Amino acid sequence: MQTVSTAKSHGGVQGVYRHSSQVTGSTMTFAVFVPPQAARGPVPVLWYLSGLTCTHANVMEKGEYRAAAAERGVIIVAPDTSPRGAHVADEPDNWQFGSGAGFYLDATQDPYAPHYRMYSYIVEELTALIAAEFPADMSRQGIFGHSMGGHGALTFALKHPDRFKSCSAFAPIVQPSTADWSRPALEKYLGKDEAAWRSYDAVALIEDGKRFPEFLVDQGAADPFLKTGLRPELLVAACQTAGIPVTLNMREGYDHSYFFISTFMASHIHWHAARLEKA
Amino acid sequence: MQTVSTAKSHGGVQGVYRHSSQVTGSTMTFAVFVPPQAARGPVPVLWYLSGLTCTHANVMEKGEYRAAAAERGVIIVAPDTSPRGAHVADEPDNWQFGSGAGFYLDATQDPYAPHYRMYSYIVEELTALIAAEFPADMSRQGIFGHSMGGHGALTFALKHPDRFKSCSAFAPIVQPSTADWSRPALEKYLGKDEAAWRSYDAVALIEDGKRFPEFLVDQGAADPFLKTGLRPELLVAACQTAGIPVTLNMREGYDHSYFFISTFMASHIHWHAARLEKA
Repeated sequence: MQTVSTAKSHGGVQGVYRHSSQVTGSTMTFAVFVPPQAARGPVPVLWYLSGLTCTHANVMEKGEYRAAAAERGVIIVAPDTSPRGAHVADEPDNWQFGSGAGFYLDATQDPYAPHYRMYSYIVEELTALIAAEFPADMSRQGIFGHSMGGHGALTFALKHPDRFKSCSAFAPIVQPSTADWSRPALEKYLGKDEAAWRSYDAVALIEDGKRFPEFLVDQGAADPFLKTGLRPELLVAACQTAGIPVTLNMREGYDHSYFFISTFMASHIHWHAARLEKA
Repeated sequence: MQTVSTAKSHGGVQGVYRHSSQVTGSTMTFAVFVPPQAARGPVPVLWYLSGLTCTHANVMEKGEYRAAAAERGVIIVAPDTSPRGAHVADEPDNWQFGSGAGFYLDATQDPYAPHYRMYSYIVEELTALIAAEFPADMSRQGIFGHSMGGHGALTFALKHPDRFKSCSAFAPIVQPSTADWSRPALEKYLGKDEAAWRSYDAVALIEDGKRFPEFLVDQGAADPFLKTGLRPELLVAACQTAGIPVTLNMREGYDHSYFFISTFMASHIHWHAARLEKA
């Protein structure tokens, strides 16, 4: 692991790091904020998964997470959203696929299968790296994210309820199998058999029996993707059927941007911290 | 005035606007955050002047000012740092001069004099535009900024103590007449006669009799520009001689970046708000 940069911020250290990933076969960059409490021993880890087109940097710069993370003593890990590099198959003109659009899955179709493995990259390789290199209490992990990263957070939590003690999302894609902006990606990454898509679809995972203690979702009511791509009511309905408590906060006037995310960032971090402190 | 974008954030509205400036002879872009309290009547205005290389966007994205501004009910105005455009004289390879480096002065030397007039642009034209277009209580204005923008804030306050009720700075250039990174710019904008530089130099303005009620300065102790470019001790010495109260917070481990600025942003906004509420 190579340190790209570090800067003191809100009493902790905001770092950017790079490593050669065996899982994705590419150099991967990620951001970690270590709060001041980590000087006294390991602290909980909160994973933030970003949305389409983002790198590790967007939430690090615009997410306004450090004040609350430093107050509550939580490490924030922000991975990239896809493998990167000239040798990685891509569609540069398509913002909903390829570079910046890994959808937190393991691709099975060529030419994407060798590199587009963000699911295994995060839950195996990057998790092991965080455990080895940072003052992280890996018995207390939470996860959240935005849009495509909200999809990632929900599906990771549902598949690893033993590992993640808390899960929330900003404007998540709750059912990517049926959303216009994600169906083409799932087909290219996973093939035409939609049965294979279900393990990367939060609503389908719940329908198929996966469970999690509770979810928190904030959604801008003025989000232009609300009705076609996001549709949080589908998650609420699936959770109600499955008996999973879910809080959906519809936020009047808010859009899909970091101006929305940053507004509710602190409340999500406090919500996670309360659960991770008890875990 | 043309609206480039607006987004709801922290209960208020973060906007970006554009207008054709008579003073700079160029199209100028600026950012304004209007807090929710403005729905009930005019609120105080806090000007944030940015540093070298920045536009209006840097602090808007990385400054983390909206939570505190929304809490205290303060408009935040973030102007650009120079005129822009293909017709504006520039040295594209020099980050300490020209585009992004207007130094908040009115140039007198050709070819810069027709456009590099950020002093008059802000105190006259943009001030009038803010008063006309936003729910701003112009009898309660404060000003702060970072680095070159800290220089701008200090000099604007010293020259207009009737207008600005509060002034603070993050890592300001307190004596640009003698700093390596600003001397070449002052010579190109203002000519070789250094007497003309004194009205754009905070320490010189104090030496020449200008006064302000008090200053607040936060400065990273690990700032790489501390000893050659910033030297806050010169401001402290000038203030002590002149009897101006100044608080200098040296912040151990902090550098010159927005990771530093954002850490202390809320404390500065609360400091200004307390003074603007009394004004």
